[in-house]
Amino acid sequence: MVVEETVPLWKQRANALKEELDSCIPEEWKLKTSPDSLPLNTINIVSDSGILSKEELGIISIDATDLASSIAKKKYTAVEVATAYAKSAAIAHQATNCLSRFFPKEALERAKWLDEQLQKNGKPVGPLHGVPISVKDHIGLKGQLACIGFTATIRETIADSLLVAKLREAGAVFMVKTCVPQAGMQLETDSFRGPTLNPYNRKHTPGGSSGGEAALIASKGGVLGIGTDIGGSIRNPCAHVGIYGFKPTVGRVPRTGGDGISAFYGQDTILATTGPMGRSIRDLELWITSSIMNEPWKDHPSVLKMPWRKDEVVFKNGNLPKIGIMWDDGVVRPQPPMRRALKYTKEKLIKAGFEVIDVLPYKSAEAWDITSSLYFSDGGETNRSNAAKTGEPIWPLTEWIMTQSTKPRTAAEVMELNLKRDIFRAEYHAYFRTLDIDVMILPPAPDPAPRLGTSKYWNYTSLFNLVDYPGGTLPTGLHVESTDIPDEAYEFTGKSDKEVWENYNDVNDFVGLPLGIQVVGKKYEDEKVLEAMKLIEEAIRA
Amino acid sequence: MVVEETVPLWKQRANALKEELDSCIPEEWKLKTSPDSLPLNTINIVSDSGILSKEELGIISIDATDLASSIAKKKYTAVEVATAYAKSAAIAHQATNCLSRFFPKEALERAKWLDEQLQKNGKPVGPLHGVPISVKDHIGLKGQLACIGFTATIRETIADSLLVAKLREAGAVFMVKTCVPQAGMQLETDSFRGPTLNPYNRKHTPGGSSGGEAALIASKGGVLGIGTDIGGSIRNPCAHVGIYGFKPTVGRVPRTGGDGISAFYGQDTILATTGPMGRSIRDLELWITSSIMNEPWKDHPSVLKMPWRKDEVVFKNGNLPKIGIMWDDGVVRPQPPMRRALKYTKEKLIKAGFEVIDVLPYKSAEAWDITSSLYFSDGGETNRSNAAKTGEPIWPLTEWIMTQSTKPRTAAEVMELNLKRDIFRAEYHAYFRTLDIDVMILPPAPDPAPRLGTSKYWNYTSLFNLVDYPGGTLPTGLHVESTDIPDEAYEFTGKSDKEVWENYNDVNDFVGLPLGIQVVGKKYEDEKVLEAMKLIEEAIRA
Repeated sequence: MVVEETVPLWKQRANALKEELDSCIPEEWKLKTSPDSLPLNTINIVSDSGILSKEELGIISIDATDLASSIAKKKYTAVEVATAYAKSAAIAHQATNCLSRFFPKEALERAKWLDEQLQKNGKPVGPLHGVPISVKDHIGLKGQLACIGFTATIRETIADSLLVAKLREAGAVFMVKTCVPQAGMQLETDSFRGPTLNPYNRKHTPGGSSGGEAALIASKGGVLGIGTDIGGSIRNPCAHVGIYGFKPTVGRVPRTGGDGISAFYGQDTILATTGPMGRSIRDLELWITSSIMNEPWKDHPSVLKMPWRKDEVVFKNGNLPKIGIMWDDGVVRPQPPMRRALKYTKEKLIKAGFEVIDVLPYKSAEAWDITSSLYFSDGGETNRSNAAKTGEPIWPLTEWIMTQSTKPRTAAEVMELNLKRDIFRAEYHAYFRTLDIDVMILPPAPDPAPRLGTSKYWNYTSLFNLVDYPGGTLPTGLHVESTDIPDEAYEFTGKSDKEVWENYNDVNDFVGLPLGIQVVGKKYEDEKVLEAMKLIEEAIRA
Repeated sequence: MVVEETVPLWKQRANALKEELDSCIPEEWKLKTSPDSLPLNTINIVSDSGILSKEELGIISIDATDLASSIAKKKYTAVEVATAYAKSAAIAHQATNCLSRFFPKEALERAKWLDEQLQKNGKPVGPLHGVPISVKDHIGLKGQLACIGFTATIRETIADSLLVAKLREAGAVFMVKTCVPQAGMQLETDSFRGPTLNPYNRKHTPGGSSGGEAALIASKGGVLGIGTDIGGSIRNPCAHVGIYGFKPTVGRVPRTGGDGISAFYGQDTILATTGPMGRSIRDLELWITSSIMNEPWKDHPSVLKMPWRKDEVVFKNGNLPKIGIMWDDGVVRPQPPMRRALKYTKEKLIKAGFEVIDVLPYKSAEAWDITSSLYFSDGGETNRSNAAKTGEPIWPLTEWIMTQSTKPRTAAEVMELNLKRDIFRAEYHAYFRTLDIDVMILPPAPDPAPRLGTSKYWNYTSLFNLVDYPGGTLPTGLHVESTDIPDEAYEFTGKSDKEVWENYNDVNDFVGLPLGIQVVGKKYEDEKVLEAMKLIEEAIRA
């Protein structure tokens, strides 16, 4: 008797989606090396592959701002750009498993239309004319499947989400959607599609939940992308792969998914926001200003009527922002390379004439208690039911976050927690005011990109979701070095502190991983944070 | 055997508070007539009382803008103004039961200090220098008791709420707090303090929940006040007593109570906002600009960083706003005088050259279903427990609103309702955009001030809390006339429609009551709505 193995529904769907995606990659864009034989570091795989022409390598080497201007000046056509990025996205995916959907044909049609428009009108359709924008999987893009990391939530998007519509109006070209972790709630990017890998070290995570975007853009498979952030999901992966990201104050840019599939719909406790991920700070600004130039608050009431007013930014000391450095949140000690990155930054800033002070953290442990208790006010039931529909297991890191202070609550219990949240927000605002700084610099995570499956401590980023402060990450240009030897054991504040220390147990496994910093500022002061990031980067690069 | 009657705790407290308040009114400010012998119409009782001097009558006859400028020019001292208003507030209270607290001594001390400052510095401390501002009872004012209409919630406020602090910085003088209904949730103002009465007809309500403010200001016992609005609580009472009021978009002005006593703390479903109530539109603007001139978003994260930018208002047709008139919400027909007020307004606007179109309502019944199900997501338990603590009965109109679609819900159920809310908000935004108007004019209520105890239909105002649109009310200058005869019975859409029709069964009981209109606009377009109100008023008065 032959026993047939039953493939569970979720796995059938996962396999079918993988096959479909693979079939969209032409043979000539496929790597000769099998994934298992690739080196750990694939950060240069696009140029190393020999698949792109010299001109195409030139195209993918510049940032979106330069790209848009090169297309406007007819140095490159939108079709040439789309072709170069279609190739490089396919290559990046083969090394890092960063894509969920790939549709180069649609992109090339769109690019062709854009070239015709430029020819006909003599000017670009908008500031993103011809710029490829990658889209995190759960953000609705017309005609494409969307999902939040469960096979049961996959559905085709009927109309562009507001953000995608606005970027499309600005001239963007869409060719990929990128991996999200199960439930969208990991600081890694693992789901039925398998883990997305860090291009600097494929045994490590690119972070999450926008880790698909991060791996793609860092590998130069994309130039500018749409991430989302409810606990660090833009800032964390950007830091782990050495790119730039920004989490706006909720409402500053369009944030409705438009696809109705998130387990967070209708939950007001802590709100997610969309934001840009890219390869320069000016590209982050280009993304933001493009997304709101047509006044999306007229389209949807969830967008704040706040035009981008960077001319109104005033720093406390005149031309340079006054900076506070928070070295340690008092709960989980940052590992040696993270501290070195901060120290380097501080030295560079002082050399450049910035006023820099050291600041202490404010009630970090309490912040995480509140945050984690508010993420799943339905007790995670929506997610568990989505998993159950197809027999999909709950991934370990999804299980981990869903069991942090989570239970099905009554409305009255949520009100009590919300009140704690509101009090914390008010206290934090008063604390930040007392610091008398423009922006704060702190680690984007306690460690460089962790080994796959080991990222658990959210609070270096999630605290700023709790208080809804804008924040971004930028690479310092430094990487882990063999001299960043682990600390001797010390008196740990608790389990998280010990785990992070234990994970960073062998520097050799981390050497070469990029080191970023996080910059945050007061609610609604998005312009100030971004302007400060520009000046901080100038100082670091000097 | 003598049976002692037990006075329940709530009644003991209510009596003590009443005695204390009465004891703050000097004998010479007391009316000679007992409350029961007063005429139904006491709108001129302050001037009729003979208690105020001619100069004092002059003081209370002008609006806050003129008052501030008269004090700045030393035509009046702050002490003279405070004295005049202390007298008139005491008189208004005796006729309408509008005050919850009265502290003229503190006000006179403050006024004296302000006079000294003006003398010393040669300029006012701020734009409200010497202007009395009345405060709705649950808004925290340092050193005073605050409550939300239950004796169990009474407590002394340790520090000014943010709004009060900002108005104080601007030079305001505080001398009264005003009545709120039980739980703050009636379109009337009835609680353990007894009902507040309409100065135009003491058998009718001044509306609610800011009915104490309304009765006080209409009687010229106050010039400018702080109301709050979660379902119409500013707009409704202003319309019922012929004064001006404005409900800003949530967050445009400071809205935290600072006193921790509201049953709505921690409830994100539908948010209340504070707003001005006064005797001219320019006074509403003076209140708003004074409340945010010192950038309160720096003090508290719940205030939007949106300066008042009226210079940026652009109307669709140039100088005049394009207006849509919504005659009927499709659920409850406005009674004849309300329709007459709209018709009159429309004629005046057309004569003045406005573009005016008639518009249809959007899903009013569904809006109320969502709104009423979201008001008490704890099922009203907080309120019932507050009542139980002192044996206080639940007032009939409080019971009524608390049993509209209310039950204790789970967090997951609230999320489902919130999702409905979010979808409705998006739909309404699209609908309003399709109308292609600047602002909408509609009735502020389906009827003129109802007889005490009969106000039930909230949806002409509460819909704009659901969608968080700014809105104001202004008096047309018209009043109910004996020719506004009730409609013949018609086919009612349901219970509410029939009840409102039945309540307006005898025009003679309503003659003389003022008739207002409501003006609403898109979320965050507060400046546009207020500018439109100014122009609409000009047209009406022409």
